[in-house]
Formats: sequence, C-alpha cells, structure tokens
Amino acid sequence: MRVVLPAGTTETALIDGISAAGAAPELMEHTPSADVEILAYGEPVMSPVTPVSPNGCPTPAAVTRAVREVIDFDVAVVDAGLTQSTAAPTVDLGVEPGTDVREAVAVPSADAVFDRAYDYGVSLPDDELLIGETVPGGTTTALGVLTALGEPTAVSSSLPENPIERKRRVVDEALAASDLEPGDCEGRPLAAIEAVGDPVQPTVAGIAAGALEAGTAVTLAGGTQMIAVAAVLRHAGIDAPLSIATTSFVADEQGDRLEAACEQVGCDLTVTDPGFDGRDHVAMERYCAGEAKEGVAMGGALSLVPDDEMAAVRDRLEAVCARLGIDGTGEGSSVAEGSRGP
Amino acid sequence: MRVVLPAGTTETALIDGISAAGAAPELMEHTPSADVEILAYGEPVMSPVTPVSPNGCPTPAAVTRAVREVIDFDVAVVDAGLTQSTAAPTVDLGVEPGTDVREAVAVPSADAVFDRAYDYGVSLPDDELLIGETVPGGTTTALGVLTALGEPTAVSSSLPENPIERKRRVVDEALAASDLEPGDCEGRPLAAIEAVGDPVQPTVAGIAAGALEAGTAVTLAGGTQMIAVAAVLRHAGIDAPLSIATTSFVADEQGDRLEAACEQVGCDLTVTDPGFDGRDHVAMERYCAGEAKEGVAMGGALSLVPDDEMAAVRDRLEAVCARLGIDGTGEGSSVAEGSRGP
Repeated sequence: MRVVLPAGTTETALIDGISAAGAAPELMEHTPSADVEILAYGEPVMSPVTPVSPNGCPTPAAVTRAVREVIDFDVAVVDAGLTQSTAAPTVDLGVEPGTDVREAVAVPSADAVFDRAYDYGVSLPDDELLIGETVPGGTTTALGVLTALGEPTAVSSSLPENPIERKRRVVDEALAASDLEPGDCEGRPLAAIEAVGDPVQPTVAGIAAGALEAGTAVTLAGGTQMIAVAAVLRHAGIDAPLSIATTSFVADEQGDRLEAACEQVGCDLTVTDPGFDGRDHVAMERYCAGEAKEGVAMGGALSLVPDDEMAAVRDRLEAVCARLGIDGTGEGSSVAEGSRGP
Repeated sequence: MRVVLPAGTTETALIDGISAAGAAPELMEHTPSADVEILAYGEPVMSPVTPVSPNGCPTPAAVTRAVREVIDFDVAVVDAGLTQSTAAPTVDLGVEPGTDVREAVAVPSADAVFDRAYDYGVSLPDDELLIGETVPGGTTTALGVLTALGEPTAVSSSLPENPIERKRRVVDEALAASDLEPGDCEGRPLAAIEAVGDPVQPTVAGIAAGALEAGTAVTLAGGTQMIAVAAVLRHAGIDAPLSIATTSFVADEQGDRLEAACEQVGCDLTVTDPGFDGRDHVAMERYCAGEAKEGVAMGGALSLVPDDEMAAVRDRLEAVCARLGIDGTGEGSSVAEGSRGP
C-alpha cells in the first residue's frame, strides 16, 4: 500500500470569494508546498507558511500526518504544478501550475500530463494505491469538470458556508471563456480539464488509469474532487473497479448526494469518522464545525486506521497541532498565515 | 531518524579505466536514478537500467532497500545533480550534474550548493540524520578533494582490484587543470570541491553542516567518500561530533588506514558486517569477493539493524535480488545493463 499525493496549484484559487475566508491570496499558493512538508517531516520545514485557518483549524495534512505517525505508510508526493518550492521529496512529471479557469485554457497540455502520469502509475509495483490531492481551489475546478462532462454538480467546500453559488458563477464564466456549454465535453474528459480544470486532475486520473491497467487496486482519497476524477476516468472509457474514501465531514455536508454521486460514477464509497467530536481541542472542534473537511488524502488515510487505533490518531493530531503552533484551547493560536482554499 | 540520500552524477565517471568493468559508460549516468527508485519502490520503476554487474553483483541500493523492508526508516532523496530523470520522489535543491574533474571547474557554484543544502539541513526537525550518497565516480572525486586539502589519500573502490594508480593520475591531471598543487586548498574546502570534486559532496556537507548547527546528530553513511566529506567539514571549521558508518567490505579493503583516516578527520567509526559469507547466493558472494562494497547508505543502514534481525535482512536481500532479475545461483542473471562506478 502506498499513498500517492499529487500536489499542485491553480490561479483559480485566487478568485475573490471562493478562497478561504481570512487567507491572504498571495500566501495560498504556498499551501500545497507546506502540506507536503507536513506530511513528509511532521511540520513545515522550508515553507514560509503554516496552513492553519484564523479559527485554529489546521490543514488536513496535519490529520494525514497524525495517521502516518500511528500506522506508518509509504508516501510518494507528485509535483502536479506546485508554484512554490518545497523541501518535501517530490516526483517530477513536468506538470505546470494551472491558470484561472476563466481563461480559455486552464490546464495546457492536459493530455500530455495524463500520459506521463499514466506511465508513472503503470510502472508502480504496489498492489494497492491510495491517491489523494492537495490543490487550493480544487472544488471549483471539480465543479467545472463535472459540469463540462454533464455530470451531477454538487461539490463540497473547505468553508462551513459553502459558496456554491459563487462557484457556479465562476464555472459559468469559465465554460463561456472556453466556448463550452454544460455537457459539451461528454466522452472527452481531458478536453474538460484543459478548459475548466486544474493540473492535479489529469495527474491523479493518469496515475489511477495506469495503476488500474497494471492490475493495482486504486482508492481515490478525497471528497467531491475525487468524484470529478472518477467521472474523468469513466468518460475516458475506463470501467475497472474504483473506490472513493472520504471523511464523515464531507459525508455530513453532502448527505445523500454523496452516495448518489458515487453510484453515478460507479465507485464504492468508504466514509470514516475520526471521532473528533469527543475531544475538547480547537482543531477537532473546527473540523466538527465543518471547516476544511477533507484534503491531502485525509479520508483515505483515516480509512486505513483500525478502530482501536483511532484514539491514538487523535492523540498524535494534538502533538502535530502543537508543532504547528495550535494550542488546544484555541487561545494563543499564533499561526494563521495560510489556509486551504475551498 | 531519517536517511537522507543525495544522488548525483559527475562526468568523471566516464573516464576510461575508473568506471566499473563491463559497464557501458552511457548507461552509468542512469545508475543513481535507478538506485533511488530501488530504495523508494523496491525495484527500478521508470529507469531503463538495473544496476547489476555482469557478475551478478547488485547495487548497494538493493541492500539498503532490504534493510528498509525489515526495519522501516524514513528516506529523503535529494537531487544532487541527477542527469537522468527518476520516478523516485526527490528534494530539489537546484544542484546541477558535475563535469569532468580534468576540466578547470568540476562543480560550478559549489558554495551556493553548500548554502542551499545547509538551509535544508538546518530546517529538518529530526533528532538524528544518517546521510548517504550515490554518485558513480565518487571515490575518484573523493581522492581529488582529499588531495587538494592535503589529507591522507587512500580511497576505496567498487571493484575488487582498486584502480588506485589510475585514479591518482586522473587527480594529478585534475589538479593541474585547476592550477592547484596537493594541499593548496587547505582551509578552503569548497574551492577544493569546485576544482576537483563532485556535486554530491557540497550537498552532503551542506546538509550535515546545517543539521549539526541545529543540534541534530549526524552520521555519514559511506566509506572513503564520507572521509572526504568529513575532511570538508573539518576544513570548514566545523568541529561538532561526527560519525561515519560503513560496511565490513570497505573496512576489509582499507585495513588500518580506515581507522587512521577517521581519527585524522575526528570521526567515530562504525563498521557493520552483514554476514553475507554464510549464504550461498551470488549477490552476497560478490560482496564478499570485494565488489561494490558500499554506497547508497548501505553501511549506515546496516548499522541500524539489531543483531537478531540481520538474518531477516539477508532473506529480504534475496527477495530484492529476485525482483532485480538476479537468481541466487549466478546462472541466468539476465540483467547487467548498468553498474556502479568505483
């Protein structure tokens, strides 16, 4: 079992009103680079930001790292268009950052990215892959791709109040800029990504497609962003079994729509509740209040935890939070420089 | 504890007579890229070569990987001048491949490489680092740096018959091309590397220097190449405690000179014998015959293995060898496309 984590950026995250409240846009592009440092080293190392919201909600990378400190798993981070350098080891597939979806082309050469990611995925010797993502703005680009493919269009948010109408307007603009109507890209998923997606999508999809071709079991670790990737794979004619593993926080927000969406794209669904509601700690309280919800393979990593070790994960999360400058009370949280986009 | 592995190349490896017998020079530059794939994934993944000598001796990466499969440890591979792409995750410090030491400049901007590596090393949160290397031709560049610094000049080889006289002639030429006499770089170790070294040296030295500054315990995992790095650190005025961990194969070749050299550069020495002589397997026989000896942090990794798990390491090595196309008998070894340089 290996966790593969494509990490990238899109200028879409900078659009006013879809980025996380309180986060300075110029710092958001550091978030995925900091996330993968937290996953690799347990804390930001050379990244100048620590992705913690002003409320004291840490990036999901903190949770995935806490899981890793309890049940060790191998990680391969893939540079899927990072803007800022990172001290984490990354696989270089030559992926460039994405541009604003409201431009004509959002992901130049999406098909070439998919092909290189496929070659990587097909070559991996693992029996089982869990593929996650970290890309601020990723739910908006997921909405874009789902809409272009003519698939159901509910997406999640890292904010308690999902700015879904704002996202829909952005996607409408994005489709118009690419001369597309909803559903125009049916059966042409890479055209959908090129027009209104982000560079993490063809990277995840390509690795998944290659791995499936090699007979590897693939779980997509994420929420509605992974529904979009699953739709991409299905529209590419790939009908191998596919699973999605996400958090109870996404499931709580999405309700019945989540299962319906998984059914529509032919994916098994695993939802894991980390039991944060039993703890008096600001980070876990913020997750229970609907902040962040998912990302950095959080739901997939949690799905690997045996029931009797989940309490240890919560303990480790407190330790990781302390390293990120979050004390449990929510007072004196000194670090609020970055944040995940919705 | 984290194993940090700078991996790079120098055109010095292509000099006739110092490269490993039987290896095609044009394939040698793939060796470090393949080594780090073996360490990360257990076998070459996208690399077109498998570093196994014509005699069936696998790269030390196979041994380090076998150790990792028994006692899991964290790895961070650093791109210290790779020529060929690799599917392994790597930390990018912007290090370029090295040129032939017989040119005036062997490592452009060695001081800038050292500085970036220092910044990385000082930022790592680990209590303890074990720093290895993989760079074909690395013992020749080690001889070059030791000679330029005026330090004792015995170096090891990946070949049973060490072409030490050939290496000395190369180093003489290299010094002349840089207008240097032996000892001219005393106290100026980065000038020595720039003139007659390789890009892995300032990367290892910089990470070590930064980590030592941060209070991290540092072990240099390797043989005579790490004596050269230790000399670099001492000539840079760094007098913190430093250890070297290598294999019994290097110690057997070097005899008393190894301990004397460690004493001269103020390093503790740990020598680990993996007990390969008890096994009827071609790979282990080749190591006992003096092939390969060390590299890819092999000696350091072996030093981490508790005595009662060393047999498990040998078992795993057989499994890794099978994945590399080496059967235990030495017959039918189908893969001999690459090889480590001496």
